[in-house]
Amino acid sequence: MAISYQLEQTSSESRARLGKLKTPRGEIQTPVFMPVGTQATVKTMTPEELKNLDAEIILGNTYHLHLRPGNDIVREADGLHKFMNWDRPILTDSGGFQVFSLGKLRQISEQGVEFRSHIDGSKLFMTPEKSIEIQEDLGSDIMMVFDECPPYPAEYDYVKESMDRTIRWSKRCLQHQKHPEKQALFGIVQGGMYPELRKESALKTTELDFPGYAVGGLSVGEPKEMMLEVLNTTIPYLPEEKPRYLMGVGTPDYIIEAVRMGIDMFDCVYPTRVARNGTAMTRFGNLTVRNAVFQRDFQPIEEDCDCYVCQNYSRAYLRHLIKANEILGFRLLTWHNLFFLIKLIKELRQAIADDNFLAWRDSFYKNYQN
Amino acid sequence: MAISYQLEQTSSESRARLGKLKTPRGEIQTPVFMPVGTQATVKTMTPEELKNLDAEIILGNTYHLHLRPGNDIVREADGLHKFMNWDRPILTDSGGFQVFSLGKLRQISEQGVEFRSHIDGSKLFMTPEKSIEIQEDLGSDIMMVFDECPPYPAEYDYVKESMDRTIRWSKRCLQHQKHPEKQALFGIVQGGMYPELRKESALKTTELDFPGYAVGGLSVGEPKEMMLEVLNTTIPYLPEEKPRYLMGVGTPDYIIEAVRMGIDMFDCVYPTRVARNGTAMTRFGNLTVRNAVFQRDFQPIEEDCDCYVCQNYSRAYLRHLIKANEILGFRLLTWHNLFFLIKLIKELRQAIADDNFLAWRDSFYKNYQN
Repeated sequence: MAISYQLEQTSSESRARLGKLKTPRGEIQTPVFMPVGTQATVKTMTPEELKNLDAEIILGNTYHLHLRPGNDIVREADGLHKFMNWDRPILTDSGGFQVFSLGKLRQISEQGVEFRSHIDGSKLFMTPEKSIEIQEDLGSDIMMVFDECPPYPAEYDYVKESMDRTIRWSKRCLQHQKHPEKQALFGIVQGGMYPELRKESALKTTELDFPGYAVGGLSVGEPKEMMLEVLNTTIPYLPEEKPRYLMGVGTPDYIIEAVRMGIDMFDCVYPTRVARNGTAMTRFGNLTVRNAVFQRDFQPIEEDCDCYVCQNYSRAYLRHLIKANEILGFRLLTWHNLFFLIKLIKELRQAIADDNFLAWRDSFYKNYQN
Repeated sequence: MAISYQLEQTSSESRARLGKLKTPRGEIQTPVFMPVGTQATVKTMTPEELKNLDAEIILGNTYHLHLRPGNDIVREADGLHKFMNWDRPILTDSGGFQVFSLGKLRQISEQGVEFRSHIDGSKLFMTPEKSIEIQEDLGSDIMMVFDECPPYPAEYDYVKESMDRTIRWSKRCLQHQKHPEKQALFGIVQGGMYPELRKESALKTTELDFPGYAVGGLSVGEPKEMMLEVLNTTIPYLPEEKPRYLMGVGTPDYIIEAVRMGIDMFDCVYPTRVARNGTAMTRFGNLTVRNAVFQRDFQPIEEDCDCYVCQNYSRAYLRHLIKANEILGFRLLTWHNLFFLIKLIKELRQAIADDNFLAWRDSFYKNYQN
């Protein structure tokens, strides 16, 4: 097996847990946040900077890399790690979510999905087999099955049909993968906002015995309470001894709640995307650095943050860079936000290790303005 | 005096020379290339990265910083060095060139120039005194006099009148500066493409006894031969014992020719600007990295370049980043281009030190395709 998960400790007060995920490219402490490197780069950052922030694993997007530069080119470069100069683990998604959210004029059949590229409108066809082949070209350490992510809201009958198809596609992915000893393949639980479909999906997916499981189809526009409720009813059907990955979640409060329910892995464009909009993440909530109120504010983003940005630059300077559309501004806010989120996860792990996760959570929420 | 220049060595075959420029923030080896940090940032780069490239001094733009964030804000931040986290020397231009090239609806009078901001169209009035006050707020180590840079082509009579006004403005700048012991003020020779006006401007400007002299008004659209001819006839009127700065020049061949004629300092947006257009500078000439021919080219930009970029990334990867509009692509090409140009100047200094500048120049040109 390409990866193995070791459960290290479980909170006595909740389902929060600590673990180690061993991969061919090193060991990852869980819970973990994976910065998103959509187009073979975590936007604005070098690999050395990501390591400096203690990023342990990053995510690559199969759909984007298939379209540009093309997975054939990445394969010729000896894989995504070599191409982008990152030697720690990479997880690739299956392209499913992007085909459904970015692809135009998509048509779903049992065989796969026909869609048009969001870049040049060319007609493309994605199947479970094709997704696996692309991910094998990319050479990620963890691949994801090709799934359908239904929109919210969606009718029960549609979600049921879609969920059953995702199970069939998952089997095809498993059968098609060539090197399970080099690249792990994770299953994805779907089922929309219907607890009974989530249960059915979880049982049928875990039956296929993947080395890890993701919960997909959440954070697609549903209310927060609904998402947490669905997550809470889904997780108990996932095996204790395998890593659990909540796809597309990256704000502090969602991460903390999901960890409380037993999630181990997260990815989200949130910290890097809001940075490019001029927003800094802090333990008091988001700071809209581009606001005029910071024009003459010569304090750092956060007084007690020991990141490179807070050690060297003022809010006034960062605001100036963002207003002037300077790349350094986007770099520095991205740096701070990733530092913030990765550090938050370290604190959260420490709280689980100390078995006072709920108290730590309460004290975090006391300051945090959502 | 804020700065002092020490002439160290002169080429026996040309007017090329080595020197040291002592400033309150450290010593600069000349000839030197100054990366341009228009808006309080050398585009895409951190100060630490610039130091890593051995950038010894950078340039800041008075016009831009006056408009945004405003020199009052920079002053409140304790000056430009502190604001942008750069502790090596900074030279600020006077804003003259930008008022004439970017300002809208400008009207020149003896008092100064009325113009409209290129950002919001607001009406502004720049005078020699105002330019000095802004540069004092910025706290640069070397300030420049407020001059008029006539366009090319321009009639003799206009250039003569403009040149005389620049002399009068230069005197007003000298009289207005408050801290000559902290901030040096350089004069600027104008005179368009007319050798006799250049001579007159040089004589009248040097009479004012500035600690350094710039040649302005070149590289404004005139043919290369004309520019070199004007430069060649101007430099002999500048004193040996003061630094000489050619404004706005930054391509290898122009730098080499100007050094041969006795220029010590250069600045130009060229290396950083072409980087953002997807072009890499090399000793064989420019490489348009965004071209399709590099799609599967897994070599570095330059085989024997020891910069961070060439050590870690392929042309194929850089092309991908540029095509995908990824900030990291602009960062990496900027990094390489500044490394290239600063390293070129180091080699050029070594050639002068070895007194074989002309042979070095010939061997450079043998490979270099303009």
